[in-house]
Amino acid sequence: MGQTIAQKIFAAHLRDEPFPGTYVLDLDRVLCHEITTPVAIADLEWRGKDRVFDPLKIKAVIDHVTPAKDSKTAIQGKILRDWAHRHDIPDFFDIGHNGVCHALFPEKGFIRPGFTVIMGDSHTCTHGAFGAFAAGVGTTDLEVGILKGVCAFRKPQSIRVNISGNLPAHVYAKDVILHIIHRLGVNGATDHVIEFRGPVVEAMSMDARMTLTNMAIEAGGTCGICLPDAVTVDYLWPFIAEEYPSREAALADFKKWHSDADAEYARVLDIDVTGLEPQVTFDYKPDCVKSAREMAGAKIDQVYIGTCTNGRLEDLRQAAEILRGRKLAANVRGILSPGTPKIFRQAMEEGLLAIFMDAGFCITNPTCGACLGMSNGVLAPGEACAATSNRNFQGRMGQGGMVYLMSPATAAASGITGAVTDPRDL
Amino acid sequence: MGQTIAQKIFAAHLRDEPFPGTYVLDLDRVLCHEITTPVAIADLEWRGKDRVFDPLKIKAVIDHVTPAKDSKTAIQGKILRDWAHRHDIPDFFDIGHNGVCHALFPEKGFIRPGFTVIMGDSHTCTHGAFGAFAAGVGTTDLEVGILKGVCAFRKPQSIRVNISGNLPAHVYAKDVILHIIHRLGVNGATDHVIEFRGPVVEAMSMDARMTLTNMAIEAGGTCGICLPDAVTVDYLWPFIAEEYPSREAALADFKKWHSDADAEYARVLDIDVTGLEPQVTFDYKPDCVKSAREMAGAKIDQVYIGTCTNGRLEDLRQAAEILRGRKLAANVRGILSPGTPKIFRQAMEEGLLAIFMDAGFCITNPTCGACLGMSNGVLAPGEACAATSNRNFQGRMGQGGMVYLMSPATAAASGITGAVTDPRDL
Repeated sequence: MGQTIAQKIFAAHLRDEPFPGTYVLDLDRVLCHEITTPVAIADLEWRGKDRVFDPLKIKAVIDHVTPAKDSKTAIQGKILRDWAHRHDIPDFFDIGHNGVCHALFPEKGFIRPGFTVIMGDSHTCTHGAFGAFAAGVGTTDLEVGILKGVCAFRKPQSIRVNISGNLPAHVYAKDVILHIIHRLGVNGATDHVIEFRGPVVEAMSMDARMTLTNMAIEAGGTCGICLPDAVTVDYLWPFIAEEYPSREAALADFKKWHSDADAEYARVLDIDVTGLEPQVTFDYKPDCVKSAREMAGAKIDQVYIGTCTNGRLEDLRQAAEILRGRKLAANVRGILSPGTPKIFRQAMEEGLLAIFMDAGFCITNPTCGACLGMSNGVLAPGEACAATSNRNFQGRMGQGGMVYLMSPATAAASGITGAVTDPRDL
Repeated sequence: MGQTIAQKIFAAHLRDEPFPGTYVLDLDRVLCHEITTPVAIADLEWRGKDRVFDPLKIKAVIDHVTPAKDSKTAIQGKILRDWAHRHDIPDFFDIGHNGVCHALFPEKGFIRPGFTVIMGDSHTCTHGAFGAFAAGVGTTDLEVGILKGVCAFRKPQSIRVNISGNLPAHVYAKDVILHIIHRLGVNGATDHVIEFRGPVVEAMSMDARMTLTNMAIEAGGTCGICLPDAVTVDYLWPFIAEEYPSREAALADFKKWHSDADAEYARVLDIDVTGLEPQVTFDYKPDCVKSAREMAGAKIDQVYIGTCTNGRLEDLRQAAEILRGRKLAANVRGILSPGTPKIFRQAMEEGLLAIFMDAGFCITNPTCGACLGMSNGVLAPGEACAATSNRNFQGRMGQGGMVYLMSPATAAASGITGAVTDPRDL
């Protein structure tokens, strides 16, 4: 019997199997941010175990509320900062160098095929785009990870999603994943790894793949994962050039993680994207998805472009393509938060920020911010936001607010008309 | 007996003198932001008087916490937004178009020589740079202003500050006003107008004059005021070109507001700036001022460049001149918040934002933010900030935090070394 990529990663990292089906894995990366890590730090201190298993395998960032909005968030940042300095963690990213964790850490080359990655953040699954097993964990798991460099998981079962066909114009990875979540349901992949396969995935950039894997958790998936290929090699090359004699050699090495042809899947889902339309959520669950045309006319007060789902350069380009030469509707507030300082800088140099500003957008610094209603564009009761983020839970972007999830292109089109709009109908 | 500029403005706007020495003036501008205006709006509604005296003379902006950081600030913004729409106030500035009120309103050409201006904000005195009488007021005065277009003031007595000599390199308007506040004391100008005169003021740009007048309140002054001249005409020309046949004609008209040669002053202070050094505050009052060299070595954790005092283009240029090719010290966080979207855009096009980013700064959107500890860079207890703002009160930028006030150039230099530094000593 062959193995899936997740099973191969588990096998390669297995430290212990204390109970049948429970695997304790060695960790390659423990990622940290200032909202969940201070709780783990405080508990480790209280237990007299203020240590880290390996400062080089821990990466930390202040990203959720940055710059700090009040004393509480300033203190949370300070706890993480002091801890990183105390333990000589070199890769700690503070104001000026910080960005949304799931955009920043891949950009720094920290994630590699075959890696095991945990973080106290639900969208850690994003990093599976590199062929890593990456999962969001709770405080206890995070503490153990920080201290011991291990984490326990159940035996991985995978759902294989084959994506084929031709992506129509103005239809992107975000539309594909919203459609998949609609098909699977919010619990459809619980305790499973979603393995994204097929020619559509192979043709996607790393930016687009990260949009896919980012939302695996919205169908309940422990991790979303893509097979590492030449696209992965090209993205990582600046960081691995000294490890391999050639890109071909890197690719050959990465392929050892590929799922075997006879691997077993709990479920196989075939998606043909040829006729797929731009997708938009309704209601308060991410599997409540309709086409943008079905949702057309739903009034919005705000457009939010950014987040770990769609705050990357390609996303900004797609939105800018729609915004160029156009203006946001009166009474629509536009907020752009590029995912990282590098993306901010590239968008500035390419003239994308100017396009956003000409359209009437406010350019804010990289931060998670409004996506989870913690800063940077919280909604007032009764307001609705066209958002490129990943969660539309009730009150997510502010008590009494409504969040419509969609692609950057659809969000941009909606901002221009003031109501949900299929970009093809502009 | 001749009149001061303030007395001339009072005479031209006098509606009533209900008691000797109390003047009720007609108002040309009632400026509003989202922190103090919602209280006035709520009270007017409660009294059944939800009206405005003239929607064209009222200008409103969301600037203190923007984009909203939580439900409370989202609702404050919404109250101002809904009120502006309800009363057809055309000049309401929302996210994407908003900036720090005392930078944005002058930039829009709203302030003219001889105007009377009120706002529920202590630094309203900034607008005196245009030869206007501009004062911060409390909620009741703001309400009456919104409803009736009048405000009561005591008979104006002026302190004349003659500024002469040659400004040394790296010494700016901020250093001059810190020195003046040091000389006058925090109550030295209470209930008085500070009239800034002399060749140094005449040689200053409008940006620099606004830095001077902005801090009049820090010496207790009701307003800081400059005589309108050719610099004022040039700044306002895009807005007044249709009102005057020529710049000379505008200048001649503006001069009617000039203080008479035999006007009487409560006090005259002569300042020679020739030997003035870069100035920095210590302790928790803005009149606690030393030279940067005396303060050298005081450790900082953060540099904050922006605010209504020093968030204008000239300020950004002065900081960038110091930052070009240099990096912030390790452990120093840099935050730049340009005063308005126009300043942000100009700074981007001039390459200033790139210089700030290369130095390690975070670029945030225009907002009052951290200056008053409400968002965008609040300090944790025990931290110190080199700030271009105007108030160093205890806890101003966050409970337990220390604020050192200084010029953009001195703040930039301090960021580079990690401690208060005279830019001449870099």
